[in-house]
Amino acid sequence: MTPDRTPDIGLIEAAARRLRGVARRTPLLDDPLLDRIAGRRILVKAECLQRTGSFKFRGAWSAVSALVAEGRPRGILAMSSGNHAQGVALAALRHGLPCVIVMPADAPEAKIGNTRALDAEVVLYDRLREDRDAIGAALAADRGLAIVRPFDDAEVIAGQGTTGLEIAEDAAAAGIHEAPVLVCCGGGGLASGIALALAARAPGLRVQTCEPEGFDDTARSLAAGVRVGNAPGARTLCDAIVTPRPGEMTFPILARLAGPGIAMPDAACLDAMALAWRHLRIVLEPGGAVALAAALFRPDLAPGAAVVAVATGGNVDPPIFAQAMARLEDPGFFPVNPA
Amino acid sequence: MTPDRTPDIGLIEAAARRLRGVARRTPLLDDPLLDRIAGRRILVKAECLQRTGSFKFRGAWSAVSALVAEGRPRGILAMSSGNHAQGVALAALRHGLPCVIVMPADAPEAKIGNTRALDAEVVLYDRLREDRDAIGAALAADRGLAIVRPFDDAEVIAGQGTTGLEIAEDAAAAGIHEAPVLVCCGGGGLASGIALALAARAPGLRVQTCEPEGFDDTARSLAAGVRVGNAPGARTLCDAIVTPRPGEMTFPILARLAGPGIAMPDAACLDAMALAWRHLRIVLEPGGAVALAAALFRPDLAPGAAVVAVATGGNVDPPIFAQAMARLEDPGFFPVNPA
Repeated sequence: MTPDRTPDIGLIEAAARRLRGVARRTPLLDDPLLDRIAGRRILVKAECLQRTGSFKFRGAWSAVSALVAEGRPRGILAMSSGNHAQGVALAALRHGLPCVIVMPADAPEAKIGNTRALDAEVVLYDRLREDRDAIGAALAADRGLAIVRPFDDAEVIAGQGTTGLEIAEDAAAAGIHEAPVLVCCGGGGLASGIALALAARAPGLRVQTCEPEGFDDTARSLAAGVRVGNAPGARTLCDAIVTPRPGEMTFPILARLAGPGIAMPDAACLDAMALAWRHLRIVLEPGGAVALAAALFRPDLAPGAAVVAVATGGNVDPPIFAQAMARLEDPGFFPVNPA
Repeated sequence: MTPDRTPDIGLIEAAARRLRGVARRTPLLDDPLLDRIAGRRILVKAECLQRTGSFKFRGAWSAVSALVAEGRPRGILAMSSGNHAQGVALAALRHGLPCVIVMPADAPEAKIGNTRALDAEVVLYDRLREDRDAIGAALAADRGLAIVRPFDDAEVIAGQGTTGLEIAEDAAAAGIHEAPVLVCCGGGGLASGIALALAARAPGLRVQTCEPEGFDDTARSLAAGVRVGNAPGARTLCDAIVTPRPGEMTFPILARLAGPGIAMPDAACLDAMALAWRHLRIVLEPGGAVALAAALFRPDLAPGAAVVAVATGGNVDPPIFAQAMARLEDPGFFPVNPA
């Protein structure tokens, strides 16, 4: 874990300096035909185009580079089966540091393969019988590795917050000064980082978290004013943002700065993936499309003449993507010229 | 047609000034896993992310804005069933000008619908019995509309050439000063514009045109030193770049500045679309993937430790895209960790 700090605009701007020329400055996309379908202006921050295919690289680079600045760690360790794993693996690789990723043995082949291709050592564990945190902590202690957590880390939040600096700049250039900014939310690292950046740089833009139905712990926690968890047993296609409860460090930031949370059904995420394919020519994963789904289909919950949606990632298995493409076969699928 | 001018770096830079804040500055994407598959560094200029989903908007805006600067035309006319149609329609719409697009009656519903959704009047004709050029010329004369041609127009070439200015800048920032720049080629408007821009701004980067097999008129013309046409009867999935012969204005530029042309089979374009989906998270149409296919699979024809490929467009019908996605079902499809 990176040194004890409080995430704020200063830390975000410092992270932005370290990320310059390393992370990609992703475009804020829009399309007149998508606007016509939505009945309002939609701007999409395309973090699926970020290195390793999700915003996670920002936080990973921020944390690893902060650790290196404090004194060279012997290596990096992360526990993740998904986007955080790849972000951390690439950040470590580019810093010339060994990297260990602790992943469940039943993670998709492609994710294990991609993580290994980034030269990380993948340690597999049995999700049903073994304790991931214990395995990670023991390995880290044994080999002197620094752990990069997925969201409850000030430098990770600061790195994700650089997305907000870019949104503030590009929305202003597009003439948008008041709008909801919808952010796909798991543990809340991205949403809280963006909320901090916008509060400082574009106070008319306000974050609202978007989660899959059944995993709307953040929405319910924001409504209750305290952290509450998800009931067990729910299922969703949005594997990237399934977390048991809001983060300890991220939740107070969201409670202070974010508007009401929104929960969306999987079917709406598939529709949003299909529309992003057709009108923006980008590839989204279900968990990366929740915010766009809310922007398109729930203007009642996120009102405004314009809305910004953060498309957080595009790492998806072909069969899931095919489910989204199948929506396009319906000749009545969101016509651009409604009769 | 825009006033009589010669396309050169001055015209390209003037077009770039008119396009600033209007066209999108598309990213130059890369991915370490894609590099690993290719065995060299590949940078992809993602013009599928351009407004209307292809580079065509650049040339259209350049031409329409030049016409407006000369004196307000009563309206704009273009003849096209594809990407040029949508680019011109949006450029006219944003200039507040009426727009007529002459399209074959058997063009895909989606393309007709999208063009109408951009407020263009679509005039359909019978491709087998009617003469498109005669219909367009009569309409233009009758209504006082200015025709924007797809490639043999100096301001169109200048607009497409702005892609080359961005490649020169972003390749330099990535430390690449010598490389082939592979460009999908129909009439040669984009390839000639980029060639002019690179000759002036990045002389170590050299354009090579990429065409579908059976439609390699530019490659054969470059080899022969004179413009030769395609034999009739060939078929390809690359509908966007099927032209009978190189342009009158574009060919001399390519003959002077471009390296040898490359022809690729449709199957390689589908593979490139699938790899762009998996590693870059962008949507390409077959004709927009020819250059990436050549970069990936024909290093012998475009040698270099690094290569730039221009991904020209992403307007594709779902069934064609499904053909590319089907490649991913083969478990041996370009593994990132070859055994």
